Amino acid sequence: MINVLFAAGSDRWAQYEAPLSDAFVRAGLDVRLMVKTDTPASIDYIVYAPNGPLSDFTPFTGLKAVLNLWAGVENVVGNPTLSVPLCRMVDPSLTDGMVEWVTGHVLRHHLGMDTHIHGQDGIWRAGTAPPLAKDRRVVVLGLGELGAACAQSLARVKFQVHGWSRSQKSIDGVMCYSGEGGLKAALCIADILVLLLPLTAETENILNREMLALLPQAAVILNPGRGALIEDEALLDALNDGGIAHATLDVFREEPLPPDHPYWAHPRVTVTPHIASETRVGSASQVIADNIRRGQAGLPFLHVVDRKAGY
Amino acid sequence: MINVLFAAGSDRWAQYEAPLSDAFVRAGLDVRLMVKTDTPASIDYIVYAPNGPLSDFTPFTGLKAVLNLWAGVENVVGNPTLSVPLCRMVDPSLTDGMVEWVTGHVLRHHLGMDTHIHGQDGIWRAGTAPPLAKDRRVVVLGLGELGAACAQSLARVKFQVHGWSRSQKSIDGVMCYSGEGGLKAALCIADILVLLLPLTAETENILNREMLALLPQAAVILNPGRGALIEDEALLDALNDGGIAHATLDVFREEPLPPDHPYWAHPRVTVTPHIASETRVGSASQVIADNIRRGQAGLPFLHVVDRKAGY
Repeated sequence: MINVLFAAGSDRWAQYEAPLSDAFVRAGLDVRLMVKTDTPASIDYIVYAPNGPLSDFTPFTGLKAVLNLWAGVENVVGNPTLSVPLCRMVDPSLTDGMVEWVTGHVLRHHLGMDTHIHGQDGIWRAGTAPPLAKDRRVVVLGLGELGAACAQSLARVKFQVHGWSRSQKSIDGVMCYSGEGGLKAALCIADILVLLLPLTAETENILNREMLALLPQAAVILNPGRGALIEDEALLDALNDGGIAHATLDVFREEPLPPDHPYWAHPRVTVTPHIASETRVGSASQVIADNIRRGQAGLPFLHVVDRKAGY
Repeated sequence: MINVLFAAGSDRWAQYEAPLSDAFVRAGLDVRLMVKTDTPASIDYIVYAPNGPLSDFTPFTGLKAVLNLWAGVENVVGNPTLSVPLCRMVDPSLTDGMVEWVTGHVLRHHLGMDTHIHGQDGIWRAGTAPPLAKDRRVVVLGLGELGAACAQSLARVKFQVHGWSRSQKSIDGVMCYSGEGGLKAALCIADILVLLLPLTAETENILNREMLALLPQAAVILNPGRGALIEDEALLDALNDGGIAHATLDVFREEPLPPDHPYWAHPRVTVTPHIASETRVGSASQVIADNIRRGQAGLPFLHVVDRKAGY
């Protein structure tokens, strides 16, 4: 009997109880799944989400791993009471959803769709054709699971895709940069910039005033990564002075974004409500069951977070 | 000396004179390019666009071919005075532009972008995630150069892509249908329908009341093909009764679309001003020069229209 504690919030319990139980059965695991426990020492695995009820892992003396329901781990990775492996969610559906959001919104800005979506007023706005994708440079910051998949999708639509990551990567069809010099070189050519970095001490506010100033005139920014990657004041100033043409933001320091936040009212900002990539209940349950099966079989867990790097 | 008459309108002459001349030089052709002539019998080739000044080809007794600047030929193919080969424009840039418009607008509707583009009012509209592309069925009517390229692009974004054409085609990653039964089978599953058929006597009004009724509830229609493929009254009725969720239309029976046309005011219609695919001057000039070079070398012309089929 494997004891699994679901510590990802009571609202999610209603969504996940049945799919997780099904996934455990299909994986051949004899699991007792619970949403609370009086005997924390008996718990083998914790299914976790950052806004759940749990912050002190000390009583869980028999714990084998914490399995995060989300890709981002910044709210748990620094928890000093956590000493067992922490696994990120790497769900192919989550990657697909992110690729669709990023590819769609890059094409939206590339094609200038908003002009027509807003301009249904009888004025025939034929003009010069926009450049083709092959003449448009898109830069993806962050080349992990999500960033690499998005960069490759954009390359398949024939965009000129450049990517930057902390350590040098090599991705077919993508010009890859690394290091601080590489970051500046990439920003200088970003007609459209996509932020898909993990949030760490190094990446917080990475898109600050100095870095925003490097972007080409009328660049577009997409942030489906983490809200705190952007220095909000600096972005608002760059939008106001026209240096940045538009920002489509899916993630924020505070979510839901407060109704009086200046992003809502800014004509050059599109807010989307943290939908770029949502964990799909069925496939996420499968990923968690697979990882528990590996742990029980003595195999290394998949997608273990590097606690020092922070992701 | 090869005599080429540019009969595609005086406004386009300003755009095309230099790029065409350059393309002829690069192709090693000794061309006299003119925008009018007093000696039609001396003309070897005509560069043509349907709204230009020319409709009677009878005086051009030495003509070798008519080279259309556009992909669509419905305004010239039935011209009884035209007896020499008529070549469509098949420009890779034109195909790329169409692929970008179609992929972008399919993703726009798939992701429900308009809700957020219009909804910048402080309301955090988090909800259930839309289906992934792999669970969304897109049907492309017309599998010529443009339709096939769009279908393949959509398949690369992982949509379930189905295609229909008059004669049976075979395209990797696309479920292909043909014939009248095939058309009905394809329409029945079209969550998103893309019209890329040539306009012929058979395809005019192909999307009529009966065919619209076959589409799934809340289907979305994209028409970057030809305006007359759709029976406008029937589409407006289907939009009004909610059977069709949205239509994004790039082409119309009359262009520019008159300011008082009901499409402009309809909340479920997006009009774009015939921009899905625009001939790019440089690459189109190259295509025309290449075809003249073939003709002069005694090689068959490329992209010759089948006058009987009408495209």
